[in-house]
Amino acid sequence: MESGRLVKRVLVGRALRTDRLHEELLPRRLGLPVFASDALSSVAYAPDEIVVTLALAGGVTALTHSWSVTVAVCVVMMLIIASYRQTVYAYPGGGGDYEVASTNLGPRAGLGVGAALMVDYVLTVAVSVSAGVQNAASALGFLRGFEPVAAAVLIGVLALSNLRGVRESGRALAVPVYAFLAAMAALIGVGFYQWATGSLHKAASAAYELVPADGYEALTAFGLGLLLLRAFSSGTVALTGVQGVANGVPALRKPRSRNAASILVMMAALSITILLSVIVLTRATGIQIAQNPQEQLRLDGVPVPDDLVQDTVLGQLSTTVFGADSLGLLLVSICTGVMLVVAANTAYNGFPVLASRLARDRFLPTDLVSRGRRLAFSNGILLLSAAALALVLLYRATVTDLIHMYVVGVFVSFTLSQLGMVRHWNRHLRTELSLHNRRAMIRSRAINLAGATCALTVLTVVVLTRFVHGAGVALLGIGLLWMVMTMVYNYHRSVDKDLALPPEGSDASQIVPSRVYALVYVPQLDRATMRALAYARASRPQELEAVTTDVLPERTLELQREWARRGLPVTLRTLESPYRESVRPVIDYVRRLHRDRPREVVVVYVAEYVSERWWVRWVRDRAEERLRRELLRTPGVMLVTVPWQGQATAQGAGAGRR
Amino acid sequence: MESGRLVKRVLVGRALRTDRLHEELLPRRLGLPVFASDALSSVAYAPDEIVVTLALAGGVTALTHSWSVTVAVCVVMMLIIASYRQTVYAYPGGGGDYEVASTNLGPRAGLGVGAALMVDYVLTVAVSVSAGVQNAASALGFLRGFEPVAAAVLIGVLALSNLRGVRESGRALAVPVYAFLAAMAALIGVGFYQWATGSLHKAASAAYELVPADGYEALTAFGLGLLLLRAFSSGTVALTGVQGVANGVPALRKPRSRNAASILVMMAALSITILLSVIVLTRATGIQIAQNPQEQLRLDGVPVPDDLVQDTVLGQLSTTVFGADSLGLLLVSICTGVMLVVAANTAYNGFPVLASRLARDRFLPTDLVSRGRRLAFSNGILLLSAAALALVLLYRATVTDLIHMYVVGVFVSFTLSQLGMVRHWNRHLRTELSLHNRRAMIRSRAINLAGATCALTVLTVVVLTRFVHGAGVALLGIGLLWMVMTMVYNYHRSVDKDLALPPEGSDASQIVPSRVYALVYVPQLDRATMRALAYARASRPQELEAVTTDVLPERTLELQREWARRGLPVTLRTLESPYRESVRPVIDYVRRLHRDRPREVVVVYVAEYVSERWWVRWVRDRAEERLRRELLRTPGVMLVTVPWQGQATAQGAGAGRR
Repeated sequence: MESGRLVKRVLVGRALRTDRLHEELLPRRLGLPVFASDALSSVAYAPDEIVVTLALAGGVTALTHSWSVTVAVCVVMMLIIASYRQTVYAYPGGGGDYEVASTNLGPRAGLGVGAALMVDYVLTVAVSVSAGVQNAASALGFLRGFEPVAAAVLIGVLALSNLRGVRESGRALAVPVYAFLAAMAALIGVGFYQWATGSLHKAASAAYELVPADGYEALTAFGLGLLLLRAFSSGTVALTGVQGVANGVPALRKPRSRNAASILVMMAALSITILLSVIVLTRATGIQIAQNPQEQLRLDGVPVPDDLVQDTVLGQLSTTVFGADSLGLLLVSICTGVMLVVAANTAYNGFPVLASRLARDRFLPTDLVSRGRRLAFSNGILLLSAAALALVLLYRATVTDLIHMYVVGVFVSFTLSQLGMVRHWNRHLRTELSLHNRRAMIRSRAINLAGATCALTVLTVVVLTRFVHGAGVALLGIGLLWMVMTMVYNYHRSVDKDLALPPEGSDASQIVPSRVYALVYVPQLDRATMRALAYARASRPQELEAVTTDVLPERTLELQREWARRGLPVTLRTLESPYRESVRPVIDYVRRLHRDRPREVVVVYVAEYVSERWWVRWVRDRAEERLRRELLRTPGVMLVTVPWQGQATAQGAGAGRR
Repeated sequence: MESGRLVKRVLVGRALRTDRLHEELLPRRLGLPVFASDALSSVAYAPDEIVVTLALAGGVTALTHSWSVTVAVCVVMMLIIASYRQTVYAYPGGGGDYEVASTNLGPRAGLGVGAALMVDYVLTVAVSVSAGVQNAASALGFLRGFEPVAAAVLIGVLALSNLRGVRESGRALAVPVYAFLAAMAALIGVGFYQWATGSLHKAASAAYELVPADGYEALTAFGLGLLLLRAFSSGTVALTGVQGVANGVPALRKPRSRNAASILVMMAALSITILLSVIVLTRATGIQIAQNPQEQLRLDGVPVPDDLVQDTVLGQLSTTVFGADSLGLLLVSICTGVMLVVAANTAYNGFPVLASRLARDRFLPTDLVSRGRRLAFSNGILLLSAAALALVLLYRATVTDLIHMYVVGVFVSFTLSQLGMVRHWNRHLRTELSLHNRRAMIRSRAINLAGATCALTVLTVVVLTRFVHGAGVALLGIGLLWMVMTMVYNYHRSVDKDLALPPEGSDASQIVPSRVYALVYVPQLDRATMRALAYARASRPQELEAVTTDVLPERTLELQREWARRGLPVTLRTLESPYRESVRPVIDYVRRLHRDRPREVVVVYVAEYVSERWWVRWVRDRAEERLRRELLRTPGVMLVTVPWQGQATAQGAGAGRR
């Protein structure tokens, strides 16, 4: 136990007092990396998703349409960001989508958003960490084959850094985010300069001939439209994470809403700039990527070899702009890899706050409500890490498998929260009289309505075009989570109702029983039982007897003899047990006592040997646990546990504690 | 809960009173099927193991040596059985190998035997059930691909039939064992009659040319010797299960030792007869089996097709003797399949008795000591089923993977127990004076010494020739189990020592504390807490106060106001909690109280909401559980749990119980 505490202290740090909480709020320059890193990092894989999907119909199609699909994604992003600006002003208290949907559409819709966001946060961690590891593996060859292990280690590191508290992790993560942005600026700047001066090379993959995949050889207009929709829905992965800011408003310094709105605009500007620039340069350098290179890529009419490794779009672009084995390529690769892992951190800032909100609203266990030793929501952090770890191990850290589930959750919550905002403005418009304010509200409502329509459209496209590729699984997960949280909520409500005190001063629960009938359970005669007996006598009950069950007759006889020999001042009653049960006869006897004396309380004293060894619970006799459980189910009973601390416990218990 | 009880009642049956135990003893004609079915069923796969191993060196080698290898196995069996006859007479109390090794070689050796036998029993169930399912799948094609599921269902059925009690399962299993013996008799009788009259056909597989496997083309004399040893060690699988009788002696009717000895002789006679006859007929019909048929089998110089299904030796023999699609073939197949599953039942009779013995000797949790509702050792049955189930699912019910681990455990226990018997006779010879008795003892000792030497030799051969094929895993499993049981034993011993009462009438554990200081823990104000307060007042402690921790200041304030408003007659003390912990401040306060008043006992009242819903424990606040655990680790404290039964519980608790 002591060594366990030491390890925890070293890993997590000293406990922090509640009154230090305000110090943990983030200024804008730290808020951007903490809450927007997820959205920004999406540019590392969104271009690949668009290019790969379009490439199914061959190189020409990819070249022609990648630009328009990307522009469509950027337009959606601008609409959604504009919508969220309305939200952060209207709801400065945080909770983001969840609060908006609960307040305006009712708790069921709010819970739907909550479930969708929780699934999405878990996928954010799983996808970003997996992508980061795959990125790293292309530079560090020894990682290949150990991707799941590396991803698991990374999740552990993220969990620890967040358990240490939100401020420290914010500061630690600002550097890589800004480094990534600098690397992108350098890549794009140099690329456009080369393009303008005509010194931009063609990419190595531009030399391949990209033939259409099986079944895509001669697309009809309808088939092409469908493919464009699929590419678009793949590209919307660039939008994942934009809700992070709205959920994180309470962690920002004041003025919170203003800061959040600025962060949203900065984020959108950066994402769109990078995304468009990357796609333009991709076309200029002729970069090509195929889902199945051996099938689709030809070099001088011959299929490419089996061991061809396709780099990501960013990787190929850096190689083309800076040259192979250049410092620039290395820096871009490192910054992108680190950035992706940092992006997972967004989820660590969003998920625990959301879980705490849901728990406070009785949808989750109360353990998730409060902050831990370091003022972070420790249990939420652990829950998120465990879920992401399970996903990463289940899907062996392969991004392609995970990414298909990813977009669904975000767009479910986009849609519901923007609809909620529309309702919000409607409600306020009903009472608002000032013409100036009304005009602003009507404008906001229009923006949110456009956002909701757009989000719903994208959600429909995503579910329709990707249902079998993971969107179905994501929907199932969200539905299950929704059901579980509803169950928990109903349980909490029924307990609250059951336990609520009547407004008047007295009810049955306050009637003091007239007498105490005490029993000491004696499974065998040892020092623990003796102490239970002594403590029972110290309480001076009106009646006191010891009881034992006759499971093995020879043992019972021996116990009775020993009892008499020691002249113990309490009667020992032997309960018959024809079916060899040690628990049932005691329960039956207690029930009989309670029936005969309904106004008394029966107190049962049970000795418990307390051991520090963690595995002891596995080898311990289950009978005592069953006795305890059954007694607690019996009306009119109190259970007194008299502990006997084993050697190790008694020594350790007095020592240092924090 | 009520429906759970009903299901249990239907599946397991009414509880049986202890005084019906003697009715459950088995007569000899039921003892043979119950305890010898494992050993008898081995003849269904032992010939295959010998033939397949020899076939590695080609068809001629297999034909030449199968006879001598089988004879060697039979000789070993006779020696081992003769040894066991000494054991059942010397130790009529059962426990078999475990008791013999513990008594004569000390508890460590006994524990080694115990671990070896436990591993072996689990493998008996896994192997027999898997072999039975594979056998059934060749007749019932729809089972193919679902073997693990079918095996799991079978294990469930076995577990249930055994939970119903030893007598019923004995009777239920006698029929298939005797049916199997009758089927074998018919097969062998008809086979030999055809052979004598010259009407015995050649088997279909005799037409193949069996070429040596890669690396076995030109064996040296040493290589051939090694192959013969491997075939022999594979063939000793025929001996698995012979120790079942010795372990099961206490379940037999009196005279137990005589009955056990007769069963041993019958078993050996039957096994050897069937084994030798089958091998003779295999040679006469020219049956051939190869480990890898596509590599080794040729038809007219061409490799056999990929979809060739090789039947077992018994299957091919029945086809040859009775003809394809004949009633005889069908009956032999069915009887063999059922017999294999029945064989698993031997383990269900041996394992729980052994586990109970080990638990009584403090090597396992006490839950395993006593008999359940139906006078069977329920916990042992469940443990065995769970372990076998895990093995079957892990190895996907493939016999070849499992069988390699199988023999090790048996021969470890053979060796240790026969060595123990030698010691046993040595000890008795030291005091025995009668010349007649001495002569009998010296003869017995010689038999046991021969048995021990033989068993040790076989064990060495098995481990050396099969280490990588599973013998290593089995040894590892035995070693781990040995370590775990040693840990449990040491724990039990330290608890016993810690709790032992001094022989004199008084020690510290019997000092009655002078006063009671009572605290009622108040996390919030509800009916459960009110009841705890009322019960605490009923106990009339010398001092009584209510305590709460100040985790969220606004909640605490509200609680204090409500407390005052209701005019509760007990002081409410608020404990500060700067680190937002609800448990730690209470523990610290209790410690302080105990330090200031060492001769008093501190009683802490905690209300507990009791719910019947099984999943509630997963969503419940962990803080209360932690408070309970920490309080029990604090010296001088009693913990009083005051239950509040939720609606469902209070209704169900009074209803019928058995």
